[in-house]
Amino acid sequence: MRVLITGVDGYLGWPLAQHLTRAGHEVAGIDDYSRRRWVGEMGSQSAIPIVPMADRLIAFREETGKSLRFFKGDLCDRSFVVNAYKSFKPEAIVYLGEMPSAPYSMIDAEHAVYTQTNNVMGTLETLYAIRDIVPDCHLVKLGTMGEYGTPDLDIPEGFFDLEFRGRTARMMFPRKAGSWYHQSKVHDTNNVEMACRIWGTRSTDIMQGVVYGTRWDDMGSDTRLRTRFDFDQCFGTAINRFCCQAVIGLPMTPFGKGTQKRGFLPLRDSMACLTLAIENPPEQGEYRTFNQFEEVYNVTDLAEKIQKVGKTLGLNPEIRCIDNPRFEDEVHRYNPDHQALLDLGYKPTRDMDGELKAMLQDLIEHKERIASREDAVFPDIRWDGSRSRSEYL
Amino acid sequence: MRVLITGVDGYLGWPLAQHLTRAGHEVAGIDDYSRRRWVGEMGSQSAIPIVPMADRLIAFREETGKSLRFFKGDLCDRSFVVNAYKSFKPEAIVYLGEMPSAPYSMIDAEHAVYTQTNNVMGTLETLYAIRDIVPDCHLVKLGTMGEYGTPDLDIPEGFFDLEFRGRTARMMFPRKAGSWYHQSKVHDTNNVEMACRIWGTRSTDIMQGVVYGTRWDDMGSDTRLRTRFDFDQCFGTAINRFCCQAVIGLPMTPFGKGTQKRGFLPLRDSMACLTLAIENPPEQGEYRTFNQFEEVYNVTDLAEKIQKVGKTLGLNPEIRCIDNPRFEDEVHRYNPDHQALLDLGYKPTRDMDGELKAMLQDLIEHKERIASREDAVFPDIRWDGSRSRSEYL
Repeated sequence: MRVLITGVDGYLGWPLAQHLTRAGHEVAGIDDYSRRRWVGEMGSQSAIPIVPMADRLIAFREETGKSLRFFKGDLCDRSFVVNAYKSFKPEAIVYLGEMPSAPYSMIDAEHAVYTQTNNVMGTLETLYAIRDIVPDCHLVKLGTMGEYGTPDLDIPEGFFDLEFRGRTARMMFPRKAGSWYHQSKVHDTNNVEMACRIWGTRSTDIMQGVVYGTRWDDMGSDTRLRTRFDFDQCFGTAINRFCCQAVIGLPMTPFGKGTQKRGFLPLRDSMACLTLAIENPPEQGEYRTFNQFEEVYNVTDLAEKIQKVGKTLGLNPEIRCIDNPRFEDEVHRYNPDHQALLDLGYKPTRDMDGELKAMLQDLIEHKERIASREDAVFPDIRWDGSRSRSEYL
Repeated sequence: MRVLITGVDGYLGWPLAQHLTRAGHEVAGIDDYSRRRWVGEMGSQSAIPIVPMADRLIAFREETGKSLRFFKGDLCDRSFVVNAYKSFKPEAIVYLGEMPSAPYSMIDAEHAVYTQTNNVMGTLETLYAIRDIVPDCHLVKLGTMGEYGTPDLDIPEGFFDLEFRGRTARMMFPRKAGSWYHQSKVHDTNNVEMACRIWGTRSTDIMQGVVYGTRWDDMGSDTRLRTRFDFDQCFGTAINRFCCQAVIGLPMTPFGKGTQKRGFLPLRDSMACLTLAIENPPEQGEYRTFNQFEEVYNVTDLAEKIQKVGKTLGLNPEIRCIDNPRFEDEVHRYNPDHQALLDLGYKPTRDMDGELKAMLQDLIEHKERIASREDAVFPDIRWDGSRSRSEYL
């Protein structure tokens, strides 16, 4: 199948291009290196060194024997997008080309507007490109479990039968996002669902949990093929930040009570799930939602797991909570459904300890790189708009 | 109270400035004349002549004895917005400064992106301006009943108790909008609700039905103070288009079966409701939703009412359905709640026949202006992206 990956230079996009190519698909990618710039803006860099795209493409061809078709450009640039679609004629698109950080979106008005414009308008341009150029194309859109927020309810996969005053209709489950970034994904969800409804577009909207890990099943040994790993306050998830803190001898720092729960899945499982979604497309006009994660942990459980695994590698990080720069529920119910991918044949690997060990080993190799940017890990972007470093509680 | 009206040059904004000033409030307005440009782009003009803002402001002062503070600029221009807020320090904002047309948003990718950028980012800039400059300010935000779409359910006012698998939580009622414009209002709703939740902003989000009419209670007799009246396919509502068709001797043209139901309210009631919302602000941090309309009619009922009233004025328009350029339910349930404003003291005027008669009389005066743009009334913007004129069924 011809698969176009937007954001192919990113954490998920780069391994996915390799994984899909090895699985026999013809892959093209779009990127404008925004992620590299954003992380630079945060005073940080990928813990695992990544080479420029030109070198990535050479390594890709050497390793897989196939070329990755690469389009350098901005997903909000209409003529660029239209030309790329006309040239490659994708049968599936995996849309990873969004700004993915909640704190980055909360820095100030400029970053809020940038985030929602970049994410929502890029997706809107894509919906038009699909409608006008490749109407049968399957849009695999990356949403986030964060769209739902943490209501005191179970969470279905996107839709549910709403019973109201004696009548019932299948409706979208209400979202309750907690950052401008998460809201941008809610806006996307609403726009994509409408395109399916009125234009007959087909889409799988993936509410993905937190992806972690440095490895995937069929990764090559060429270091130029490795994917990025961020640990700064914006682009590093809690699990990434904890691992890097553990590696450079800093305490791991859950926010507030540290009892926030999230769904997690390893990078290798994310690759498997995205491939399943691509290879099992919905019907024309269908909009479906997958909640994509493997297991739910709270943030302190995670830190304790990293502590335990870290000890086997000679690391012994403390856990010290810091005041929470976010506005979020720290104590909450979290019981979202995640059945659709299992029904398609997803076999969770369920080896978090193994993944954490591999991550820590890969990061220990680059301890100096991480230590050189240790200031980037500590948060100072607050949801109230102030900018002051969190304190240990 | 110091009230800032964004979109003060528009259909609702201009009468509201007068109405609030007469009610003793200190009013300022923002506009960049976008509406005049959009209507010009559609090859049309206001049926009722409107004078340039400079002349409006002179007439305003002569009539009310007070000056309207006017800021000319774009609501997406951050420094302009910040300066206006710092200068006027509003205690309430009535946010009417959005692109309000579903068909306009459906023309093509450019118009879709323009609509969502203009509407959503303007509101986002406003939320930041409120947070940083006037945090106690009450944001009266204009949404639309169209955010809900037409689910086969009753529709509450914004929120409801969602019961799911034995648990209950108060959640936002799911939206199901049918155009990029309507989606832009859904995105706004989500953004504004979040600002209230995390920043303690206070907002009344008004899901307004279709406003019609040319007059309001305390309007002056100076023709420079009259408000615009659009009848083109984008900026004229069905009721406006029907009235203008009746006046120039064309058939009135419901779309499809003509059984689409909507909530309606006269301009004078809209002024009263917005004033009630302003004068009864929510608590700090509260986000509340009002469904604002008086009565529900289907589109053919409306045409028949106009026919009946028109006959008393010597008009005798036919009703001829045309093929529906939109993707929408033509036969559907429509039973939305609209109690909150009644609870605040709203007294519906309930005189649609009287309003229609006044409208037709005011339009008959400008029959030549309307006839000169009769091509603008007939739709050719289709929800599938094609551009071909609807045919009589």
